[in-house]
Amino acid sequence: MSNQRTVSFPTQELLDAVGPLPENLTPVIWDLVNEPVTDLAQIDITIFPYMASPHSLRNIGQAPNVTHVQTQTTGFDGLVDLVGDRANITTAAGVHAAATAEMAVGLAIASLRGFPQAVRDQAEGKWNPMQWRGLADRTVGLVGVGGIGEEIHKRLAPFEINLMRFGSRARTDEHGEVLDIDQLAQRASEIEVLILIVPLNDSTHHLVDASLLAKLPDGALIVNVARGPVVDTDALVAEVASGRLSVASDVFDPEPLPADHPLWKCPNALILPHNGGNTAAFFPRMVKLLKGQLKAWSAGELGENAVHQITR
Amino acid sequence: MSNQRTVSFPTQELLDAVGPLPENLTPVIWDLVNEPVTDLAQIDITIFPYMASPHSLRNIGQAPNVTHVQTQTTGFDGLVDLVGDRANITTAAGVHAAATAEMAVGLAIASLRGFPQAVRDQAEGKWNPMQWRGLADRTVGLVGVGGIGEEIHKRLAPFEINLMRFGSRARTDEHGEVLDIDQLAQRASEIEVLILIVPLNDSTHHLVDASLLAKLPDGALIVNVARGPVVDTDALVAEVASGRLSVASDVFDPEPLPADHPLWKCPNALILPHNGGNTAAFFPRMVKLLKGQLKAWSAGELGENAVHQITR
Repeated sequence: MSNQRTVSFPTQELLDAVGPLPENLTPVIWDLVNEPVTDLAQIDITIFPYMASPHSLRNIGQAPNVTHVQTQTTGFDGLVDLVGDRANITTAAGVHAAATAEMAVGLAIASLRGFPQAVRDQAEGKWNPMQWRGLADRTVGLVGVGGIGEEIHKRLAPFEINLMRFGSRARTDEHGEVLDIDQLAQRASEIEVLILIVPLNDSTHHLVDASLLAKLPDGALIVNVARGPVVDTDALVAEVASGRLSVASDVFDPEPLPADHPLWKCPNALILPHNGGNTAAFFPRMVKLLKGQLKAWSAGELGENAVHQITR
Repeated sequence: MSNQRTVSFPTQELLDAVGPLPENLTPVIWDLVNEPVTDLAQIDITIFPYMASPHSLRNIGQAPNVTHVQTQTTGFDGLVDLVGDRANITTAAGVHAAATAEMAVGLAIASLRGFPQAVRDQAEGKWNPMQWRGLADRTVGLVGVGGIGEEIHKRLAPFEINLMRFGSRARTDEHGEVLDIDQLAQRASEIEVLILIVPLNDSTHHLVDASLLAKLPDGALIVNVARGPVVDTDALVAEVASGRLSVASDVFDPEPLPADHPLWKCPNALILPHNGGNTAAFFPRMVKLLKGQLKAWSAGELGENAVHQITR
């Protein structure tokens, strides 16, 4: 087997930015939607588009010899089922961390300080000062202590809050105590701001269900920057439409949120259209990651952020 | 002269929360608008209402023997002119720092991540993902390194930004270099996010004028949590209406912003109605400060946050 391999890039722009490839890697353009300029059977490594529908990702099935998939996202939900039997998977963990973490902090402040109301008042030229809750002195439950969870934690720490962290197991790290996620229900009555940044998997699907929502105190805010299905959307809508809870979220179930979804009508819902990691910081950071990955792939290594490895 | 003194509180609620006063202090309720229950000539110390119009503050002139004024704000612009010849002035510096600092960070993130557009899209049930600039990797100019400036700095530091600080004189503190505010014009072309938190006085009035605004790069954002007149509003409106610059501000000149003001119509203006320090954190923090002040006043001392002292 030759060590010459073909790498598909989703856009020419990304390939150009990454610059000349190591000699034993041949680039080709394939966005998983349009026909590539080369025979799909030649592709060994596929870099996925940043935002792609699950439907277009299924087209990876048309490239029979792909043995490595690189995402431009941190999440890889569904991907092991799709290609796990034949391909290694590396993600863009880290690339989105800063942008997603600032989204979480921004959503919390914006909702707790009434920014959505201010924007609605602005449309009417209405000066409408009032007291909002604010972030300082709130008890915040941060659920998820992985890469992005850690970045959220770093950014929240100076805001004079009372922070509780929940992870997949109880432990103590350099910042203090991490509670077992199993304790979330037990502590929910104390949590005024619940921030979600867990990966979506069987154990986190509907982690925030009607029962957990009912335990949150009146006026609590749910900030979701994880994945929509971490929250039971119907249960959330019931609590938000009643006005008892608020939500500020970048992710939903389903996405896009349908035009007739009841959440759009709730003044205490702040709805961002999954802009998560997509800022001006994204592209240069992605390019930097890929340069390292290409060097690793050229040397026959997996590269950074391996989340799944095939056994040969 | 007896050391028994009378202290006016703006609300019964505040007096009740502060609890029993030291024996030599007699409380009375006066909000500077309605008639007090006692003779105004008896009042020695006046606690101002939190948010009061300059017009109602002028009623302090009706209390001829007041020798000490306590504000519930950090700013005290105009107050020395009003009572400086006869009264000491102490402020609520520190009480609002956390809330104002989180407002500044929230305004920056909300504007840079397109939250106002998301709220407008929400009204139409429109899922409209797009790339926004984001805060990470931006060059931020923080103008003001006093109490609240320091709190903003602490909160901004973890956001992976390039931070420049400007103060009333060049110096080096424990966080690094502080540039002289005179250098602001010279460095303006680098500043993508300009955050203002200087006191309003003769030297900061219209600090941000047409000339400075013209030096900021295309797409720059002005965040004002200081006082409206620190910015030349007409010059700002010209740059924001053209779409070249954006603004996210909690303070304006004049306030309230008139219903027909052109800024209301700018989609790249995020307008908060001077909610600055007014959050759920405010009242308990104000009560805590006043308890200490009352103890000091009872002992014939000035208390914390003295910004003006009469000579006797």
